[in-house]
Amino acid sequence: MATRPAGEPRSGCPINAAVEVIGDHWSLLVLRDIMFGNRRHFRVLQACSEEGIASNILADRLRRLVSTGLLTRADAGRGRRVTYSLTEAGIELVPVMAALGEWGLHNRATTPALRVRAELLADGGPALWEDFMAELRTEHLGVSPPPGGPTATERLASAYVEAVARGAG
Amino acid sequence: MATRPAGEPRSGCPINAAVEVIGDHWSLLVLRDIMFGNRRHFRVLQACSEEGIASNILADRLRRLVSTGLLTRADAGRGRRVTYSLTEAGIELVPVMAALGEWGLHNRATTPALRVRAELLADGGPALWEDFMAELRTEHLGVSPPPGGPTATERLASAYVEAVARGAG
Repeated sequence: MATRPAGEPRSGCPINAAVEVIGDHWSLLVLRDIMFGNRRHFRVLQACSEEGIASNILADRLRRLVSTGLLTRADAGRGRRVTYSLTEAGIELVPVMAALGEWGLHNRATTPALRVRAELLADGGPALWEDFMAELRTEHLGVSPPPGGPTATERLASAYVEAVARGAG
Repeated sequence: MATRPAGEPRSGCPINAAVEVIGDHWSLLVLRDIMFGNRRHFRVLQACSEEGIASNILADRLRRLVSTGLLTRADAGRGRRVTYSLTEAGIELVPVMAALGEWGLHNRATTPALRVRAELLADGGPALWEDFMAELRTEHLGVSPPPGGPTATERLASAYVEAVARGAG
């Protein structure tokens, strides 16, 4: 194998290019929590983690995700919390998350309260993913909101709240 | 965090369930080469690896993929090569690979010869993925082949050969 300059991908394959950036268990889970849980601060990302992420791992993955252009980091100054936002490249991972979630639904044991969002994403298909990405662009990139009815974000959130209220999980 | 029995997922979230099994750079690349390159033996998986996988990493990931039920391993006996096959759960990763490839196409630098299969998968959409999965079931699981014209496998292979012949890459 030839010597590889730092930061150069190991090959020009698009799947390799994707997994070199996001093919890490914890990176994907941090992105999931920012994307679907709107958890924008270090403390909430750690405290609410269903998988119990350790603070040093969380700090490392946030730093990496910023350096690879999937997140931006806004420091509001002394005593104010740092806020993380998805970039356009981060938002475009919605279909990847939907595909991973659908695979997990079919092929692994999962719990009802945590299944519900993946089920809704699978049922809604690409049209729902597009709506959700448009809303993430409003929330994270500040672009104008799309017009119209109950949003994908609201549908995903209310399905989750209802499932939890039913005592599922 | 509560003590977690070995082999238990860290949460019941379907995305977590998926990435705990496949959320590893090299595991995904080994699956990609078996899936799209029909590389079924250790030696060809290592020799043809665009990313130059090391033999100890390849051996470890093949073992893990067998133990997590994504691959099966057929040992034909003394002096014969071991053959790896995708399981149904492994075949159902085609949409995940397509989503990863499409993200890589849009968001990372890639090379033309290695882009072409991801482009074809993105253009073909779910209908092509279904055809390709049906063919993988024939090839890897021994189920009866579906009827009809040029197969998804042939289309993916010929697009790749043509791109290489054009000197792309």
